[in-house]
Amino acid sequence: MEYTFSDRTNNLKPSAIREIFKYAADPTVVSLSAGNPSPDAFPAKELEEISARLFKENPIALLQYSVTEGYAPLRAHLKKYMSEKYSVGTELDDILITTGAQQIMDFATKSLVNEGDVIITEAPSFIGSLNSFRAYNAKLVGVPVESDGMNMELLEEALKNNDRVRFIYTIPNFQNPSGVTMSMEKREKLYELAKKYNVLILEDNPYGDLRYSGEFLPAIKSLDTDGRVIYAGSFSKVISPGMRVAYTIAPQPIIQKMTVCKQGSDVHTNIWSQMVCYEFLTKYDFEAHLDRLRSIYREKAKFCMDLLDKYCAPEITYDKIDGGLFIWCRVPKGANMPEFVKKAIENKVCVVPGNAFLTDEKDETDGFRINFSTPTDEQLEKGVRILGELAKTYK
Amino acid sequence: MEYTFSDRTNNLKPSAIREIFKYAADPTVVSLSAGNPSPDAFPAKELEEISARLFKENPIALLQYSVTEGYAPLRAHLKKYMSEKYSVGTELDDILITTGAQQIMDFATKSLVNEGDVIITEAPSFIGSLNSFRAYNAKLVGVPVESDGMNMELLEEALKNNDRVRFIYTIPNFQNPSGVTMSMEKREKLYELAKKYNVLILEDNPYGDLRYSGEFLPAIKSLDTDGRVIYAGSFSKVISPGMRVAYTIAPQPIIQKMTVCKQGSDVHTNIWSQMVCYEFLTKYDFEAHLDRLRSIYREKAKFCMDLLDKYCAPEITYDKIDGGLFIWCRVPKGANMPEFVKKAIENKVCVVPGNAFLTDEKDETDGFRINFSTPTDEQLEKGVRILGELAKTYK
Repeated sequence: MEYTFSDRTNNLKPSAIREIFKYAADPTVVSLSAGNPSPDAFPAKELEEISARLFKENPIALLQYSVTEGYAPLRAHLKKYMSEKYSVGTELDDILITTGAQQIMDFATKSLVNEGDVIITEAPSFIGSLNSFRAYNAKLVGVPVESDGMNMELLEEALKNNDRVRFIYTIPNFQNPSGVTMSMEKREKLYELAKKYNVLILEDNPYGDLRYSGEFLPAIKSLDTDGRVIYAGSFSKVISPGMRVAYTIAPQPIIQKMTVCKQGSDVHTNIWSQMVCYEFLTKYDFEAHLDRLRSIYREKAKFCMDLLDKYCAPEITYDKIDGGLFIWCRVPKGANMPEFVKKAIENKVCVVPGNAFLTDEKDETDGFRINFSTPTDEQLEKGVRILGELAKTYK
Repeated sequence: MEYTFSDRTNNLKPSAIREIFKYAADPTVVSLSAGNPSPDAFPAKELEEISARLFKENPIALLQYSVTEGYAPLRAHLKKYMSEKYSVGTELDDILITTGAQQIMDFATKSLVNEGDVIITEAPSFIGSLNSFRAYNAKLVGVPVESDGMNMELLEEALKNNDRVRFIYTIPNFQNPSGVTMSMEKREKLYELAKKYNVLILEDNPYGDLRYSGEFLPAIKSLDTDGRVIYAGSFSKVISPGMRVAYTIAPQPIIQKMTVCKQGSDVHTNIWSQMVCYEFLTKYDFEAHLDRLRSIYREKAKFCMDLLDKYCAPEITYDKIDGGLFIWCRVPKGANMPEFVKKAIENKVCVVPGNAFLTDEKDETDGFRINFSTPTDEQLEKGVRILGELAKTYK
């Protein structure tokens, strides 16, 4: 038979990154296109220990149905921890455990956005979130990212020119893909603008704990006096992405609606994973673990930036980063970015073309994204060297 | 601030069952309202063994990001197993691993159904699925269930009278909540009607392996010559619901669209759970495990029906069941069902009022659902005895 699809998903396509992964799967290709945590970063021994102990103590609890809201001790711990450590969450907020943070983008959009409503995002922004928004036929409006975050004049213009804005989506720390961190001034300004135009903010913070230089900046959610911020936290980058455990802290009515969405989607998050996360967060030295991760990524990021300086300067430029897993590079002057990326793949190195991260992929950009957490040092050196050699041909 | 929600979720409410669970949480109340597998039914020792071995062999594979489609060996195994054992799936079909079967209902609706499109369901039907459909503002049309499945005349009428029907949703085996199994004749007729009116079928089969008497009946999907059936299978009732692993076998274009939906929702299903399921299915005697489950539930179902005969006859009537976890009962003649259920709760026994399972909860029914897999034998006897005592007051 002939198949027809819903209007909301009719134009949905697999993400461009997925298409690139097909090349990246070729073992002769060096992939700088992923976003996986470094294999060294997993607390594998600890998770193994916890899992074995939980199976001994109460296997049925690990395997039986659980509640949609999430494992109660994990919720209680996170509420306290996030409030005490980061001033994230008030009495008017509640918390929902989700199957990865992507599900927060899904449920926030499902709960809040009618088809044709507007979501303002950074440009570039995380392609996975953009695709979550697109799956409900939201209209995406991109606001250019500068070295200290979104351009606030253009953000205000976007708020002024669009009367059905539902929320502003931002990754304030070590943004994917730009690596940029939003300044405190801009965080305050963004909150103020959201207030002025009466819209919500969806603050996505998967990399916040991975700051390896510079000074900590408070979450926008910590400024939230009138229940305007939906905060998305995740264990994918700091414990394990395969376990799919994340959480959202948001005003109670929004959490309630998202909970009903979750009930009708995957009922609850894998309870084994939730219990293992809880034990790791509370019975082990989580802060020491984060320090260890920061030192792994600090070293890896420095190594990558040194390679870029060595092999790719001055043709390829990039912004220094203070955290996270990504570096945003610009192709040599006069080069055509999609063509450059295509040639790189032909030369056996895979990076993600910057337009994949734009609200309209047809817009132009000279940027591309490289990731340094997934490849080994040898792979990284080989990949960056190839990029450099390619760049020199544009002299 | 004031919160407003999307049209699709504006009227969504937590399911009635959840509300009942609040009473069920009272330790002095006997709950016959859940749908959990019996704690005896979990292969806990085997899962513990597998998990420990996988942590030794390749912890990073358990913890790292994985692909949206699902763990490749699990997909390949299920494709072969379902095709060889049940004639489910052809070369034109593909398979997607999901985070529980509820997610299949979510993604099928998201992919296929515009707001206001019609989904035809059995009446009564599984409340979780109805809520998945409602979350996209689908219009639900219920077709009464008889002792051998949906009334086919009324199904044809529903197909005739609604011109935007997207699919027919059915649980052909030991339906939740009615316990009814659709006859072979009706399976064929349903497929024929779907063909005649050119609609899809969503066949949900969580209980198929839990037949403990009577003869096996082929899946509707096994009749599918023109790619019209989306088949939903699940390990929640036969391995573990807490692990949230299920799968859908459906025409390739539909699987592709659902895969994009999954990418934008939870990215992939917990990979540890997928790997553990795969090992259990392929390295252990899964058929012997199913036999063991069938004997647990055969005994438990018989015990429950005997109790109903002993304490509740003739006032409360019910349909004998051949499989699954639920028995559909009818309140005494002249009794008002919601009032009866309310009194039962006051008398410390919790059952689910039948209207919770209707497409319009305001419709009338004299039925209520009891579950016998979750309570202990003592709890079950106490609960049914209380129902019987209450029923006698209607003499």
